[in-house]
Parts: sequence; C-alpha cells; structure tokens
Amino acid sequence: MTGLKSGSVVEAEQVAGNGLLHRRLFLTQGLMLAGAAGVAGQASAQATPQLKHPEWMMRHGATASGYGQPSKFEEGVKRFTGQGNPLFPGLGASRTPLEKLTGMITPNGLHFERHHASVPEIDPDAHRLLIHGLVRRPLAWDMSTLMRYPMTSEMRFVECSGNSAAMKRAFPQTSCGQIHGLVSCSEWTGVKLSHLLDEAGLADGASWIIAEGAEATSMVRSIPLEKALDDVIVALYQNGERIRPEQGYPMRLLVPGCEGSVNVKWVHRIKVVSAPGHSRDETGQYTDLLPDGRALQYTLTMGVKSVITHPSVGMKLSQSGLYEVSGLAWSGHGAIRRVEVTADGGKSWAEADLSGPILPKCLTRFRIPWSWTGGPATLASRAIDDRGNVQPTHEVAIAPYAESSVYHYNAIQPWAVSQAGEVANVRM
Amino acid sequence: MTGLKSGSVVEAEQVAGNGLLHRRLFLTQGLMLAGAAGVAGQASAQATPQLKHPEWMMRHGATASGYGQPSKFEEGVKRFTGQGNPLFPGLGASRTPLEKLTGMITPNGLHFERHHASVPEIDPDAHRLLIHGLVRRPLAWDMSTLMRYPMTSEMRFVECSGNSAAMKRAFPQTSCGQIHGLVSCSEWTGVKLSHLLDEAGLADGASWIIAEGAEATSMVRSIPLEKALDDVIVALYQNGERIRPEQGYPMRLLVPGCEGSVNVKWVHRIKVVSAPGHSRDETGQYTDLLPDGRALQYTLTMGVKSVITHPSVGMKLSQSGLYEVSGLAWSGHGAIRRVEVTADGGKSWAEADLSGPILPKCLTRFRIPWSWTGGPATLASRAIDDRGNVQPTHEVAIAPYAESSVYHYNAIQPWAVSQAGEVANVRM
Repeated sequence: MTGLKSGSVVEAEQVAGNGLLHRRLFLTQGLMLAGAAGVAGQASAQATPQLKHPEWMMRHGATASGYGQPSKFEEGVKRFTGQGNPLFPGLGASRTPLEKLTGMITPNGLHFERHHASVPEIDPDAHRLLIHGLVRRPLAWDMSTLMRYPMTSEMRFVECSGNSAAMKRAFPQTSCGQIHGLVSCSEWTGVKLSHLLDEAGLADGASWIIAEGAEATSMVRSIPLEKALDDVIVALYQNGERIRPEQGYPMRLLVPGCEGSVNVKWVHRIKVVSAPGHSRDETGQYTDLLPDGRALQYTLTMGVKSVITHPSVGMKLSQSGLYEVSGLAWSGHGAIRRVEVTADGGKSWAEADLSGPILPKCLTRFRIPWSWTGGPATLASRAIDDRGNVQPTHEVAIAPYAESSVYHYNAIQPWAVSQAGEVANVRM
Repeated sequence: MTGLKSGSVVEAEQVAGNGLLHRRLFLTQGLMLAGAAGVAGQASAQATPQLKHPEWMMRHGATASGYGQPSKFEEGVKRFTGQGNPLFPGLGASRTPLEKLTGMITPNGLHFERHHASVPEIDPDAHRLLIHGLVRRPLAWDMSTLMRYPMTSEMRFVECSGNSAAMKRAFPQTSCGQIHGLVSCSEWTGVKLSHLLDEAGLADGASWIIAEGAEATSMVRSIPLEKALDDVIVALYQNGERIRPEQGYPMRLLVPGCEGSVNVKWVHRIKVVSAPGHSRDETGQYTDLLPDGRALQYTLTMGVKSVITHPSVGMKLSQSGLYEVSGLAWSGHGAIRRVEVTADGGKSWAEADLSGPILPKCLTRFRIPWSWTGGPATLASRAIDDRGNVQPTHEVAIAPYAESSVYHYNAIQPWAVSQAGEVANVRM
C-alpha cells in the first residue's frame, strides 16, 4: 500500500494521536490527495495508455455466460484451506481472506468452511427434515414442501467459536484472514424454525432442541428452545441463490449470533427435549475450559469483536501519507453501536465511520482516515455493541479461561506499523 | 408448487379479495399448515429415510476448497443467455433467473449482463482511469493508486433500461427472469467519483461528465455533473470481492438509480464537459421515442417497479391452499415505501410485508400470504416509492411513447392462475 500525500487540511482535523482524522473528513470536504499522476502539461507516462486503445479493445472477448466467475487476475483471492490432515481428508477448515475483501457481504465462494467429516453430496429430493421428541405430532418435510413455507431474509454473520484462537497464546505473522477468517456474512433466506415447531406442536416439558446434521460424523448441537423460537431459520438460500454444498446444502440452521457449530449444516433432524443433549460436539469440544479444570458449556453467543483488515499483518505501506483504515465489527448480542480506532497503541481513540446498513448480528464495515507520518504506529480497533458490550483487551479476554482453552477469543487486535511501513502482528 | 392446507384461521385474516391474507399472519400466530408428513403412529414412508443413514453419510465427500461453487443439483440455475447473434458473437445479454432466487442480493455469478461488444480481459495493472476536460489538472489513476482512496459501500440495484421491453407489445409465456431479469442487486464498494473530480479540480463551465468504457465498442454515456458529484461510485468490489469481468473488471461506474448503460463498465476515461455528448449510445439507442417522431434523451432515472417472482409465469400450483406470494420492488428515485398485491386482478389490494433493510435505489423483497381457493386468480404487485411515485398500469406506462419505443417499461405485471393451477402472463 502506498500512502496518499495530504495537504495541511489534514493537520487541522486530527481527532486522536498519531494521525487519526475525523471519520467524516472525506465526506465533507475536498482533499488534495495528489495520489494520481498529472497528465496535461506534465506528459506523464502513466496517462499515455489512455490515449491509445489498449490491446483488449482490439479483439473479441468472452460472451455472456450462464454462471460467472472471478477474473483470472484474481486467482489469488481464495480461501485458506491449510494443510489438512491426511488421515482424515474431509476434516478441516477454510478461512475467508478478509484482507482481500471489503464491504460487509462475503461472496458465497469465499464463505469460510469448517467441516468435521467432509462435504456430503446430498440429493435434495431424498433429503428430509424431521422434527420429533416432545411434540404433539412428529413431522417430516421434504424439500418441495419446505419450499412452500413463508420465508424470511436476514443479513447475519456466522463465526466459528474457534476463530482467532491462534491469538490466545501467540501472535502469528500470517494474514488477517488466516488468523480471523473463520467469520463471514451473508443474506440468509429460509423458513423460521418457529413455524415448523408450531406445526409439530410443543409438548409439556419442551425446553431445548437438539439439531443433527447429515454429514458422516453428524454434528449434534443443543439449542435452548427460547432461542429456537426467536430468530432461528432453516436456511435454504444464501445471498439470493440456494446455499452452497459446503454451507449445508440443501439446508442448514442459521442461529443468529451463536457460534458456528450450532448453525448445524445439512440439518436433517431436530429433536425437542427437556434438557440439552451433552453430545460429543458440546462436551469433547466447543466448551470453554476454566483454570480449575471445569468447563463452561453452551456459551453459544459470540462476543463483540472487530478487526482492522486494511492495513493488516503482512502488508507494507510504501510511503507516508493519507490512508483509509478499514475493518469489520460484529456482535452476537446485537448491532454494532460504535467502533473506535487507535493509531498510538491505545493511548487515544477516535470514532470510525460505520457503513450502513448497521444490522444486528451482522458484520459492519468501519472506516477512518489516517495520516501516517512515517514513524512507528500501532493500529487497533475496539467495538462496542448496542447492549453496551465492549471488546476486551487480550488480558481481559483470556483471564477467565484455562491456558488451553481455545474458543470465544474476541480481544482487540493490534497491528504494528514499522518505520519501514511493514505491518506486523503484536500485543498491545 | 403445491399449496399448504390451511385451517379456518385463514378465513378470518383476509385483507383483500380472492384469498390475500394479512402480511403479518405468519409472524403473529401459529398456523396448522399441514404441509409436512406425519411420522409417529402414521408410519409415513416419507419419514423413513430419517431413521437410517442416507448414503451420503456413509462415504467421504469433498474437502474444504479455495473457491466454492453451487451444488451440482442446482446446475439449472443459470442466467438466460438467449441465442445471440452469430455475426456479433460478443453482443448480447444474459438475464438473472429471478424466479429461482429469493432475498434481495443477487449472487455475483448470476448478475445480469448486457454487452455491446464482448467482455474485455483487462489486465488491471495496465488499466488507467483518466479524468480530463474542464478540470484544473487532468489526472490518471492506476489501480494501486485508486485502491488507496477512501471507499464507500452501498447496496444498489442496476437495471438495463430495456428490461421488460417484451411486455410493451406482447406478453410472452417465458419465465419471469427471461422477461424481467435485466435487473440485479449487489453491495458495491468503491471510490466516490466526487473525490476524484475534487482532486482534478472542476473548471468553469463544468456541468456534465462523459464516461467511456474500455470494451471494443467503447460505451460512451453522459451524466449530469450534479449526479456525478452526488452518489456516483467508481466501483471496484461487488458483494465483497473484486467485480467480475462481465460487470466491468477492474472498475465500473455505479450510478445509483440510473439506467444500466450509464453505469459504464470497464470505465477508463471521464471527460468533464459543459454539455452532454450526444454519443451513438445516447442517440441511436437508449432514447425514448415519442409518437411525434421526436425522442427524449437522458431520461436516466429508472421508474418505480415491482414484479412477483413466486408464483410466476410457467409455474404450476398443484393444489389449493396456503402460498407465499413473493417478489421484488425497486425505484431509481429512492426507497420503496409500500408494495400492494392483488389476487383478483386489481379489484382489491393488500399491503405486502417488506423485508429489511429497505434501502434507496436497492431491490426490496416483499412477501404476503395467500390462500388459493383453487379458482381462477390474477396476481399482481404495485410498488410505491418514498417520493410518492406509483407503479403504473400497462396503459399508463406506454401512453407517452411511440409504439416502437422499448425503454423504461415499468408497468404492473399480472400473472393469471388458472383453475388447473397454471400460471400465465396476461394483461390486466
């Protein structure tokens, strides 16, 4: 990244230390950014290609197509799939390359994955969703029946509770997406689970549901009935089209604000019960280990969190000047109310601009202009949600848990910019 | 489509003729929809597959991948590319299959296309954006420079002004997407054109801009400077990732609410001028021909419009009962305030539920429950925007124009449901 030279106007608008500028700077006044190359009278070589036809204007290109793909020049924009485990080829994850994206929607091809077996190839015509247990009449829906139900569309994030876990005990110099990319955001459309539970009819004692996926290892997660009746969706569509195989095709649970694994993919069975199921997936993993050896279970809601995606670890600022600091904020408790950014390692904070729409349990893009002097700087963001939850520091985030605990890490992420412009992952 | 059987509660909630029900019906009370198959005590064959492992649980499937694709079972969900013209292989369009999608976001692979030459394969490192003409200093930006600017993200529709033109003189029995699918919606992210114009510095007399694309035929469109300084974006990202080649990679203009062709794709030159350019693309086409032989130019704003996507022409309702009527509404003037739906050919109208977020110059999904009695019905939707514009009838829509005029058709679209449940395209 190269900074944009900025005029004296920038100095007048400082709102926090080390160059943070008022978030509305770009919206309220013209800036002489001097980022572009002059043309007339300066005979800039950079402008010359505009004055003759580039080669791609001289030949036929592709015609209209049935289903589009990214440019071949963007082949490097991929999910990080890691090395995997050769003994269990379907086990693993892929992470959204957050530092190569912007906005709030994650394109479907880049939504993160976390699989405990592999991606089943489910024939939708043979798939059934069964609701049984403490209901007045057990019911099963096939796809064509379920598709007739009234639907709802909601923009929501999904985050694996193991996201950012690498930061608990270290601060790797891998990319922002490799560290924090187990979170993505889509417009999900489907049938409210409450409709289906209503139709089955809840029996006395019903207080939890247990959802089971149709992959080889069957993810099994318990969800309080109150949540299931509130905003849980049997999601059939993602960003307008049917959900992708790796996101649970032909259907998944969307449990807004709750850790990824309870958003059970390939869901085929929901049992209504009087108590949580204590399945392998919520005892052997997805619990929060405490220092005394006990573990918290069913801590489903994802905490308030944010991360700066631009600039972020591994990038290089090639010159001092004006930059936009941009990132993502989210909370499982509600909507983001405010994001604050520091450029001096937490000594002072300035409020970032939030790009609308600002929705509950949804990613929110924040942006703030920053004038980098060329000296050392430590950038970080701190999110606050509309319930008043504040993103914690590293020390506060890890304090309640055992050292080997890996889930629900939502601490402030600092990135250090060196005098050479290199961005590194650090503690603050 | 098969209807869901509905109980007597449905009768009590009628809000318009021929079975339209209150839009909040599904949100406020449980309905015995009886759409699912009973299981316990009824030994339903449909439920049996739930009780044993389906074959896809018995074998390994795919592992995590770098860039995901839709399920092979959804191969039929494609843009309609039409037959094309063998003499001009790059000329043409593809249409979004609206009746196979839901929600408000169009996935990038299915965003409609309209090409006047073909899709150029542009090397982003060799691409430049030039601003010249009535400016104090002409400037050119390369990609790396432009990427450093402050960005904005906006969810906006793009609609070709020729969308729905087939309805002007006929009512084809092709699909909803084939008729109305030259409209799509994305979260666009890019640099406000006003920043770049500010930096170049507007000279005396500047009142229009002329934007030129870098495809072989160079789309050239004029835009009033007032609009260019208002909300026009040089868009670099679409739904989070870099825009697709067929959408203008590496950059396009996003001119919110204005006809598709002024959202110049592959934009490489913007000339600031004192009057519109009267280019071939705004004289030989993209004008509104009047009965007296004159033509309106620069009628850029797309009118208020809506269409029911489910059910729509070509579908078949297999039984009477409860359905959700769902569709899309939009306006180039602002946000959708209200959508009304009729089931009796316009004799009575009921208000549909709008799925949030309801954003200006953006698609808005509407939904309303409908109890089909099994008799003939004519469904249609009518959108009203926040400026008070009301979607016109066919007669009102075509009245001002010559018979051969093809652009800006935004009339109410009726679909007739026969007693056999077949849905046809009709006049109302």
